[in-house]
Amino acid sequence: MRNKQISKAVIKRLPRYRRYLRELQKKGVEKISSKDLSKLIGYTASQIRQDLNNFGGFGQQGYGYSVNNLYEEIGTILGLDKEYKMAIVGYGRLGRAIANYIANNEPKFHIIGIFDVKKIIQDIDDVEFDDAQIMTCKSLAGFIRSEQVDIAVITVPAEKAQLVADTVADAGVKGIWNLTAVDLEIPAGIAVENVHMSDSLHALAYYMQDAE
Amino acid sequence: MRNKQISKAVIKRLPRYRRYLRELQKKGVEKISSKDLSKLIGYTASQIRQDLNNFGGFGQQGYGYSVNNLYEEIGTILGLDKEYKMAIVGYGRLGRAIANYIANNEPKFHIIGIFDVKKIIQDIDDVEFDDAQIMTCKSLAGFIRSEQVDIAVITVPAEKAQLVADTVADAGVKGIWNLTAVDLEIPAGIAVENVHMSDSLHALAYYMQDAE
Repeated sequence: MRNKQISKAVIKRLPRYRRYLRELQKKGVEKISSKDLSKLIGYTASQIRQDLNNFGGFGQQGYGYSVNNLYEEIGTILGLDKEYKMAIVGYGRLGRAIANYIANNEPKFHIIGIFDVKKIIQDIDDVEFDDAQIMTCKSLAGFIRSEQVDIAVITVPAEKAQLVADTVADAGVKGIWNLTAVDLEIPAGIAVENVHMSDSLHALAYYMQDAE
Repeated sequence: MRNKQISKAVIKRLPRYRRYLRELQKKGVEKISSKDLSKLIGYTASQIRQDLNNFGGFGQQGYGYSVNNLYEEIGTILGLDKEYKMAIVGYGRLGRAIANYIANNEPKFHIIGIFDVKKIIQDIDDVEFDDAQIMTCKSLAGFIRSEQVDIAVITVPAEKAQLVADTVADAGVKGIWNLTAVDLEIPAGIAVENVHMSDSLHALAYYMQDAE
């Protein structure tokens, strides 16, 4: 259990900092001031300093931030220095897209099981999924228990989402990544993050009127 | 141009209110108090009243909110009473998943063009995409101009994202829905909404440590 005083808004910004730092790393940039980081990311320099001070700050007066250090530190804060075992539940179009994305972009997240209502023909194409097995949802709870799966990725239809969430929560996952269109009731002690596609699309519709 | 004082945080919550109201509608619920809405959504009743007061409020003292009215009003505020022409740019796994999602769940958003680097065989399976044409990216700018496309959905690889954004912005889209892993530089006057999958996954990793 860590310091609980860090606001959700700050946490939400950390992955974004890390993404920009990764881009700087790729370009060979070694250090950056909060002012230059501000120009890049679009937050104020003061906001950036304040955000990073939550974690002790990593900058040095008159030097700025070491890109490598800050990238690594933020990764550690987020828990990306650890490895996670994942199960994907729901292997329709979105499930496949997500599985593909994780396999190609998220080396710390290992898809070890894929579940769907019916046993799907193994058509994983050119994608490496470690040793992921594809199974029916009947074996979901047992698999999570025996393999000690950390994260369940839920991409089933909305009406099945809560049932799946109950099953994986009961079987002992520590986190649920919810990509369905509904919010889930999750017991305390299990982390949950939602990607609600339609909420984002509807916010876009609003901003479009505002931009007119 | 509308009232600019409404904060982004409020706007982000509106689609969520609307989703819960839709569920209530389906269950035949006709009215609801801010207190009951609070139990359902998880925001405080005071927060809910404050949010909805931004738009003049729709509740009546001692009666609560009319579910139908509030659902419709929020839809209107978001601009979901209008119709939008969309082009999907990038038709890999994620592009297909998104196209499928929109076609089945978003009646106001019409996919009229699908673009990819190479002309893809028309394998749209069981999905209705109105009269969507599948084209190479070469014809993207011309199509957006001639068909007056409102929204470009960008699901191309990260390194191509800014080029596509520049192209569609220049060709006159009003909104960009960015599903790539990078942030985009978009000219003022064009709305943009990002769905950064990995930011959400990394926030989940953080919360999992917190939940321990």
